[in-house]
Amino acid sequence: MNENPRFAAVDAEFESRVRDNFARQSLMKHLGAELAEIGPGRAEIHVPFRMEVTQQDNYFHAGVSGAIAYSACGYAAFTLIPANASVVTVEYKINLLAPADGEKLMARARVLRSGKTLKICSADVYVQKNGAEIHCATMLATIMCLPGKSGRAG
Amino acid sequence: MNENPRFAAVDAEFESRVRDNFARQSLMKHLGAELAEIGPGRAEIHVPFRMEVTQQDNYFHAGVSGAIAYSACGYAAFTLIPANASVVTVEYKINLLAPADGEKLMARARVLRSGKTLKICSADVYVQKNGAEIHCATMLATIMCLPGKSGRAG
Amino acid sequence: MNENPRFAAVDAEFESRVRDNFARQSLMKHLGAELAEIGPGRAEIHVPFRMEVTQQDNYFHAGVSGAIAYSACGYAAFTLIPANASVVTVEYKINLLAPADGEKLMARARVLRSGKTLKICSADVYVQKNGAEIHCATMLATIMCLPGKSGRAG
Amino acid sequence: MNENPRFAAVDAEFESRVRDNFARQSLMKHLGAELAEIGPGRAEIHVPFRMEVTQQDNYFHAGVSGAIAYSACGYAAFTLIPANASVVTVEYKINLLAPADGEKLMARARVLRSGKTLKICSADVYVQKNGAEIHCATMLATIMCLPGKSGRAG
Repeated sequence: MNENPRFAAVDAEFESRVRDNFARQSLMKHLGAELAEIGPGRAEIHVPFRMEVTQQDNYFHAGVSGAIAYSACGYAAFTLIPANASVVTVEYKINLLAPADGEKLMARARVLRSGKTLKICSADVYVQKNGAEIHCATMLATIMCLPGKSGRAG
Repeated sequence: MNENPRFAAVDAEFESRVRDNFARQSLMKHLGAELAEIGPGRAEIHVPFRMEVTQQDNYFHAGVSGAIAYSACGYAAFTLIPANASVVTVEYKINLLAPADGEKLMARARVLRSGKTLKICSADVYVQKNGAEIHCATMLATIMCLPGKSGRAG
Repeated sequence: MNENPRFAAVDAEFESRVRDNFARQSLMKHLGAELAEIGPGRAEIHVPFRMEVTQQDNYFHAGVSGAIAYSACGYAAFTLIPANASVVTVEYKINLLAPADGEKLMARARVLRSGKTLKICSADVYVQKNGAEIHCATMLATIMCLPGKSGRAG
Repeated sequence: MNENPRFAAVDAEFESRVRDNFARQSLMKHLGAELAEIGPGRAEIHVPFRMEVTQQDNYFHAGVSGAIAYSACGYAAFTLIPANASVVTVEYKINLLAPADGEKLMARARVLRSGKTLKICSADVYVQKNGAEIHCATMLATIMCLPGKSGRAG
């Protein structure tokens, strides 16, 4: 995964489409998630700490890491599709590397391979604590593009 | 995966330990999740429909499927460990099979292999709609047992 | 994964197409693999023990378990596609459950979900030893159908 | 996965132990695989093209990509363990990105997280063709360390 892919968006309005889709995902709002950054073939989602997203030790729940990492993968893929298309997640796999103990959880996703039908993405999850970033999870995900359907990335 | 494993709990009080741990996971409460069933080597978690757990089409968000499926795997493993041990999730992989469109989301997990250090688990996620159950996701997960630590399944 | 899917082949000649494709995979021959069984939505591949397929303890190498399990998934999907289509593996994930110590390695695959573009499959790997079967690995795999291309399952 | 981990071997003789273990894996020899490079927390395995490792289109079979990628992950972990310990692969997941069409297949693995019991690794597979390198697969793998056992990485 040491490439530096250069992807180009086919729809110049991709950012507004992505942000509009994100805003309609009630779960993201319920988790306090923010779409922090978006660009061709990449997306980043943040969740500030709050008790509602924790497990029993008051760390971020790994279910939140998984949810924002795969959503970031879906949106990274979403930036590269035509205006009238949509995406759906086929599968994802996550390895948890360290406890997500900190003030903010951040999932950074990027497209590794952009096929016409499938986009293969990776994401890394970091937790910010006292100014440092700890790498706490890594993901591989497969996203399918659906031509001509109303946008769903969930 | 066609075995019918017969696992025995080493701690007779496993159910109260599991239920206590579940009750301390703020995220599960925030998602409206319930620990529906528990037994040696198996666990089932339900989430009734509500808008807060949806994606943009008002289906259950796949992040919720992932979160309750891997949590159910963690608790299935938790039923088989000694009283003074705990578990931590190493990794999980989920394939999404159908849109989670319905009234209730249900993750059913079971231990496939119960090693001393690692428990390998699988889970299937179903959505209940008009009395029928639709198989909407399937997961494999690796859970590590930590001897002598305070219980965390997150 | 407790369904009992009933799939129907759209091409009545699916078995000869699958067997022909398998015969052209040099690696399968090199590993001594046999296509033991085939039916709509399922396939089974066997590898009898020989030193060439072992790791340092003279068990079957887990690379062989992975290779025959994902190939069996590919062929299970192959049984359900039209005569002029082909399949390609998108991804697979395997959990190793026990050492593959025995006389014959057997991968049994079946289709869990048969979409038009994607087939989601699972496989279980067993090793036969002294008449018993030991469950030594389990897999989830995603297979893509390519309409109108020459058959490749590799 | 944008870290640049600095791992130190605890056993100064790690390279000879790894090379000795590799030499005893009959499958690697059968596939024509070579341990091209080894260092603390990383390993690289190559397979030159030959018909015995192909699928029906005469590309490298994805089973070979999987086998050398997960073996490279195992050996990357192996470099970091004590002299009297060994490793065993728990699970791996691979995404296939492009056909492995070329003269040499190369799997490059590195440790992402080095816990006492578990090492989380990633690998990327490249195929060399006419002097260029094409990224054809990416893997995440979980490796367990077994203290005090005779070395097995398979």
